[in-house]
Amino acid sequence: MKALVFDGTLKLLDVPLPVRWPGTSLVKVNLAGICNTDLEITRGYMDYHGILGHELLGTVIESDSAILSGKRVTTEINIPCKTCDLCKQGLLKHCRNIKTVGISDYPGVFAEYAVLPDENLHVIPESVSSLKAVFTEPLAAAAQVFESVELSPDQRVCLIGDGKLGLLISMALSAKKIEHRLVGKHSQRIGLLGSSSGALFLSIDEAESYDRHFDIVIEATGNSSGLAQALRLVRPQGKIVLKSTYQGIPSFDVTSVVVREIELIGSRCGPFDKAISMLEEGTVDPTTLIENIFHIDESLKAFEAAKKSLKVIIRMD
Amino acid sequence: MKALVFDGTLKLLDVPLPVRWPGTSLVKVNLAGICNTDLEITRGYMDYHGILGHELLGTVIESDSAILSGKRVTTEINIPCKTCDLCKQGLLKHCRNIKTVGISDYPGVFAEYAVLPDENLHVIPESVSSLKAVFTEPLAAAAQVFESVELSPDQRVCLIGDGKLGLLISMALSAKKIEHRLVGKHSQRIGLLGSSSGALFLSIDEAESYDRHFDIVIEATGNSSGLAQALRLVRPQGKIVLKSTYQGIPSFDVTSVVVREIELIGSRCGPFDKAISMLEEGTVDPTTLIENIFHIDESLKAFEAAKKSLKVIIRMD
Ligand SMILES: [Zn+2]
Ligand SMILES: [Zn+2]
Repeated sequence: MKALVFDGTLKLLDVPLPVRWPGTSLVKVNLAGICNTDLEITRGYMDYHGILGHELLGTVIESDSAILSGKRVTTEINIPCKTCDLCKQGLLKHCRNIKTVGISDYPGVFAEYAVLPDENLHVIPESVSSLKAVFTEPLAAAAQVFESVELSPDQRVCLIGDGKLGLLISMALSAKKIEHRLVGKHSQRIGLLGSSSGALFLSIDEAESYDRHFDIVIEATGNSSGLAQALRLVRPQGKIVLKSTYQGIPSFDVTSVVVREIELIGSRCGPFDKAISMLEEGTVDPTTLIENIFHIDESLKAFEAAKKSLKVIIRMD
Repeated sequence: MKALVFDGTLKLLDVPLPVRWPGTSLVKVNLAGICNTDLEITRGYMDYHGILGHELLGTVIESDSAILSGKRVTTEINIPCKTCDLCKQGLLKHCRNIKTVGISDYPGVFAEYAVLPDENLHVIPESVSSLKAVFTEPLAAAAQVFESVELSPDQRVCLIGDGKLGLLISMALSAKKIEHRLVGKHSQRIGLLGSSSGALFLSIDEAESYDRHFDIVIEATGNSSGLAQALRLVRPQGKIVLKSTYQGIPSFDVTSVVVREIELIGSRCGPFDKAISMLEEGTVDPTTLIENIFHIDESLKAFEAAKKSLKVIIRMD
């Protein structure tokens, strides 16, 4: 089968069809989304070599599970060992021996087929289109802000970052009727958020006048200037939700965190069931973020495009 | 009157007696503690020039308040403007125009007399000795950990730092029956914590084997290696309480905070009433930390001693 492999360089290869074992399903991949993590891996992040990709919409073609057989599915990406001390405490996604689909120790979904653990798979309701469903994983990560911090409509909420992740978080906030300021570089992207969006755009310059203003700041830029800005914008005893990871070890004004008694909350992967519900209810439409769809035969081009676009999707059919 | 003044260098000067205005009291200073912040100010921190000192035990000798007149008192250090937006939100200690006794825009207590706002003064109960009472401010800062995070005896709690602040926090934890590991450089300091201490000492090397182990880590070292260690010791989805400030802007592994979904909580000044209660109940005895008491005539020597000691006290009588 065709697969997009990273082994130091990115290559479209012909590789053997993966073999299913009990408790897993063989999934025909239909669509797969390119994520910033994929781009970072091609720059050396996680030292991962193997088939890339973890945002999936596929069809189960072989399974022991009657619930899954023949269904359209997406996949959770973390595969815990279930035996380490952290797993036993219930911290499964933080397992000491974690494998992560397309990121660490487990083959990804930029391929014609993938074998995935049954318990990682979620069936997509018929009313949700495949193009929407391929956003389940990143939308779940966006919806994780609601697990990380209590959000209510009377709070002053600011979201920094108008990239893919920032825009998905903005959509998730709006779906829950949370009005918010969106600080970014691209005012026109407000148009992608739909007519019922609760976001008001602020340029980075405009944001300067909101010193210590917001109750809650969500940082989704992935660079240390966004982090510094979050510290300026949050009020004393306010909360910063950290959604993005950073190149290297940034400098960070920890003294400010102490002096202003700020709370910083790291927030990562999220609840698939809630993301699927949002797609089913239609309160969120992430397909506006799609800038391009490439066939897997053109997946190297897709990666180049993804460096300068919002969402790029790879299709296998 | 005699006063210890910093104006780029530290000097014992003869300065005019301060003049009281309505709403303030004239306090004869009896004892004053030297804090790390005082040492940092002499290295340029806060750009403060003026009389140093903010840990007070004094006697009110002139006041409009019948409750305060003639009483032994200690003082809260923050003097808010009460008119800015942050004050109006109730964030008084985070006022935009804050003055802080001996730290920023307000004369300190390393002097024979001080004029202080009545509402900053707390009367010390007769049963509490003056030497204990001079610890009220730093003990309140230590007790602030209970306001910053919920602590219960079934949690795995680790405290990093066996300096003045760390030891006071350890005492406060033990007073509330919270057993904890104390990570430090000086195993013999365990002896200062009293026989009913709930602390178990861990050397920095020994702590290495507690990777991602603790539910709550309290960082009280004030250096970035302590911060890095806190990140190693806390479990995923655990909490780090940041109690100390840092020289410059340290590098900090923010990505780890995100990936492991850690919560970081800045924690500063604390509740004086609770600190005074602890001293009154006798559950905490901070006087074991006193290494030396100097008369104000020898206050320059006291500062030199404070650089290499635990607590150094200046007495005025
Ligand atoms: Zn595990
Ligand atoms: Zn104010």
